[in-house]
Amino acid sequence: MSYQPLGDDNAFLLFDVLKADRQLQRLSAHGETDRALMRQVLDEAGKWVGAVVAPLSRAGDEVGAQFNAGCVTTPPGFARAYRDFWQAGWPALACAVEDGGQGLPWVLEGVLYEWLSAANHGWTMAPGLLHGAYECLKHHGSEALKAAYLSKIASGEWLATMCLTEAHAGSDLGQVRTQALPAGATELGDGYEISGSKIFISGGEHDLTENIVHLVLARLPDAAAGPKGLSLFLVPRLLPDGRRNTVVCERIEEKMGLHGSPTCVMRFDGATGWLIGRPGAGLNAMFVMMNAARLHVALQGIGLLDAAWQKAQAYALERRQMRAPGAVPASRGAGEVADLIIEHPAIRRTLDLQRAWVDGGRVLAYQTGVHLDVARHAADEREREQALQWCSLITPVLKAAWTQQAFEGASACLQVFGGHGYIREWGIEQIVRDSRVAMIYEGTNEIQAIDLLVRKVLPDGGQSMGQWLLGLRKSLDAARVLDAEVLRCLAQLRYFTTVLAQACADDQTLAWRVADDYLRCVAVTLLGWAWARIAATEGAEGERWQGPLRQLQQRILPELDWRLSLMKAQWSQASVVHGNQVFAPARP
Amino acid sequence: MSYQPLGDDNAFLLFDVLKADRQLQRLSAHGETDRALMRQVLDEAGKWVGAVVAPLSRAGDEVGAQFNAGCVTTPPGFARAYRDFWQAGWPALACAVEDGGQGLPWVLEGVLYEWLSAANHGWTMAPGLLHGAYECLKHHGSEALKAAYLSKIASGEWLATMCLTEAHAGSDLGQVRTQALPAGATELGDGYEISGSKIFISGGEHDLTENIVHLVLARLPDAAAGPKGLSLFLVPRLLPDGRRNTVVCERIEEKMGLHGSPTCVMRFDGATGWLIGRPGAGLNAMFVMMNAARLHVALQGIGLLDAAWQKAQAYALERRQMRAPGAVPASRGAGEVADLIIEHPAIRRTLDLQRAWVDGGRVLAYQTGVHLDVARHAADEREREQALQWCSLITPVLKAAWTQQAFEGASACLQVFGGHGYIREWGIEQIVRDSRVAMIYEGTNEIQAIDLLVRKVLPDGGQSMGQWLLGLRKSLDAARVLDAEVLRCLAQLRYFTTVLAQACADDQTLAWRVADDYLRCVAVTLLGWAWARIAATEGAEGERWQGPLRQLQQRILPELDWRLSLMKAQWSQASVVHGNQVFAPARP
Repeated sequence: MSYQPLGDDNAFLLFDVLKADRQLQRLSAHGETDRALMRQVLDEAGKWVGAVVAPLSRAGDEVGAQFNAGCVTTPPGFARAYRDFWQAGWPALACAVEDGGQGLPWVLEGVLYEWLSAANHGWTMAPGLLHGAYECLKHHGSEALKAAYLSKIASGEWLATMCLTEAHAGSDLGQVRTQALPAGATELGDGYEISGSKIFISGGEHDLTENIVHLVLARLPDAAAGPKGLSLFLVPRLLPDGRRNTVVCERIEEKMGLHGSPTCVMRFDGATGWLIGRPGAGLNAMFVMMNAARLHVALQGIGLLDAAWQKAQAYALERRQMRAPGAVPASRGAGEVADLIIEHPAIRRTLDLQRAWVDGGRVLAYQTGVHLDVARHAADEREREQALQWCSLITPVLKAAWTQQAFEGASACLQVFGGHGYIREWGIEQIVRDSRVAMIYEGTNEIQAIDLLVRKVLPDGGQSMGQWLLGLRKSLDAARVLDAEVLRCLAQLRYFTTVLAQACADDQTLAWRVADDYLRCVAVTLLGWAWARIAATEGAEGERWQGPLRQLQQRILPELDWRLSLMKAQWSQASVVHGNQVFAPARP
Repeated sequence: MSYQPLGDDNAFLLFDVLKADRQLQRLSAHGETDRALMRQVLDEAGKWVGAVVAPLSRAGDEVGAQFNAGCVTTPPGFARAYRDFWQAGWPALACAVEDGGQGLPWVLEGVLYEWLSAANHGWTMAPGLLHGAYECLKHHGSEALKAAYLSKIASGEWLATMCLTEAHAGSDLGQVRTQALPAGATELGDGYEISGSKIFISGGEHDLTENIVHLVLARLPDAAAGPKGLSLFLVPRLLPDGRRNTVVCERIEEKMGLHGSPTCVMRFDGATGWLIGRPGAGLNAMFVMMNAARLHVALQGIGLLDAAWQKAQAYALERRQMRAPGAVPASRGAGEVADLIIEHPAIRRTLDLQRAWVDGGRVLAYQTGVHLDVARHAADEREREQALQWCSLITPVLKAAWTQQAFEGASACLQVFGGHGYIREWGIEQIVRDSRVAMIYEGTNEIQAIDLLVRKVLPDGGQSMGQWLLGLRKSLDAARVLDAEVLRCLAQLRYFTTVLAQACADDQTLAWRVADDYLRCVAVTLLGWAWARIAATEGAEGERWQGPLRQLQQRILPELDWRLSLMKAQWSQASVVHGNQVFAPARP
């Protein structure tokens, strides 16, 4: 059974819990976007994803993308499904009307990609990269480049890539060596000859579209060393005159999973390209799309975890093994010698724990999606700034914590199948293999943690983080038990942030030693906040929501205090005194 | 670079920390087995494993075992390496001299299999099953069966399988349906016709040996329902007269990993077999070998984690990315723009954490290996009983916690490689895939946890567990800082065990709800004990041992208090009062 989007769940979180429709309708750009319209779009998306994309996932893994003499063939059915996809207008859902898009809220694109990733992670890699390229070109491209490429990218008629990594430059893009030499005027502006080799290029070559638009990070002559010497270039597979550019795919990688997506080694041999943005501002141009791209990856994590849960839940409702302690005899069929494994406490816990992460993650990711639109369209500057701050702080947390949970949770769901989980037949081991990559790409999870703590929280001594946590309080009602616990977590984290900022001022490596734990603390606290929102919503009374909520309370929230104590143990020998509080030094 | 055993490390733990040679020489069976002899055996084993078995691992994964019309071909080089292995006498290392073995201590077999698993998990599955079959046949087989099969199994000239699982009966062997019908006298005793289908049979068919000896769980006519109706049968591929028995391999499974080991669906069509042990005592006969077999799996976990660490450590000592905070400038080569990634705190922590688990796990597993020999050979009955108790309590802990750490730690080591970890080239993703199965087979990790708590700790109200924990105190010196912390952990766990036993008496599902956390608490505490032993040994002063020790203190031991609090949160609403202590009820 392949993945089926359960739209009612998503709609409950989006409309009942978050009231996303009302939040969006306050923006003039989305004044007409009511719940009925959004629901209709989602219903069509869900039907199409379940019927067309999900059934191709298994062949995507088993056949995989194939390389032959510079050409890449995608797995059976991929090309036809992609043609349906872009011709139906799905890639342009949230693109601006003037670029040929439908101008709908970003959050609908978010839900669509969550479902697509759940249904078929490999296939989804191809269109997934369009959206960053669209934003990048729209905001930094020259008018001539936009006229030639923007609408084709918006519609998805042409696909796009991000050519960043080189063999020796992975997380450290400052080491990129690909060269760009000026090559005279062209009808699209000054041309450049791009030469160098890029690795790990998803969709660098394939048979899904006629043209592929590569966005390539390279150095102009005499550029500064390091990241400030990097510029961004648009390098198409086919040149405007129809000739083939000198870009070749040298091979595709054999990977742990994600076999449906060709991961290419690309060689640029004096390939023709055009500058996007200013010389030396290549990384800048890419940062524009970073939050949205990382949110896409977080949604992959949420989707893959939901897909793993869906398989394990179905299996646990069919498979009988042994008597379960405390099982209600009524659940046993006549003559059954064993109980459904969902009655076994360890299995039930595993399943509900994953739902706690999926549903709470959806609340956080969807709210972030709404804020992406607020940041873009709100009339009030202060409101736009606050929305941007939300996106900036939460995105690394969603990316890192939810991709980690996708992998670990998929492995836990595999365990539900026992030995059957380890064989291909049930498809659960594919999710474990596929999901693993999301902890690495778009910035490894360790880099997300450093981004959060070192670049975003510490520079102002934790002030803006503290303000943001205060803001989260406002939506909670201290009279409810869960809310009270979440308020305690928010207060703990806020206080700890200030103390940590001071300690980091005295210890130059401390921030790097605790960054992963700090991100995890933020994730756990935010998950609590999300569930406080869910629990306070009419319609969340049944076991469907209360089971995961129990796991949140019993197993997830307690992690905060433990992680805080792990970080405190990293303090240097001397006690750190702050206000009336003394943190004892770590054990020697 | 394939895996290389580093014998000095193992020898330090075995001889300097545990003084295994002195412990063993107290047994008359091993009076002559001194350190020099044991070290010589290990040196030869290590050299052979690194040179012959390790280089075959990659092809084992990529080519894998192949099935064709009932026959299984093992990957290139496997058959030749196996012939060398048994002809050199390795399988019979710890078998009794009267069975053609060398009569050496079990712990040497343990270290050998740890290295073999690290070097090539798939290949090692084949001989790994010999040892349980040997013990089972030796203790329960008739004289006629032993005369015909025991020495061939001891030597490894013939390989063996365990045919337990059926499609509907995985963890729940009571549901086994394979039938055994009496078929008259034969020269090996009363014969039976065995009919049924078994799945997940490792090495059910292959080209490594002429004969394969299947140990098959089946039901005699009119046998009781459930586990008490199961009997064990020996069913050879080739009958004593050289004819082929009616046992066929129907297919092999496509798996997540472990491709070098054929996982077979076996059909028995009235195949000729002989009873091992008494009718209805089939599970009993197998429990004989359970501790040793589960210890083998724990050693797989330790070995695979060591292999993952070895790859990641080597990569981290070569790869340069970005400036590391606090890195010593002297470590930078002239003109290097980036630091070795081992200088980055998150990478260093990952590597040292795995070593904390590997080295501490070795101390525990090797001591258990010594106790297996004490239980077998000690003159004093009380000493034998105490050794058996050690094995019985610690084995499920080692199996579950160290196979989990192998998978999670291998994934953490993959992360050290960034994107390079996700592609096949470096071999690290293979370890992640291969190691995953060990959390499932020989009893899932959840079943190990239930075995520990429900079957071994609770029946006497936690008394014998408490005594055992008291016994662990004796080897520690409270004057040392680490020892003091470990003594605190031991006391905490001991006290908690008593309280838990009482709470479980009042709540029939509590034990099942907390079993996994309880096992984890025991694992963490034992790891502390193991490291207290290491830290107290001359030679452990350098960073090689102090780095992992810091991770143990800062990240692993604190988990105990957190897990205890998670379990307490499972208490029912009413407070549980024990002595002067009141555990507050869980949050509602």
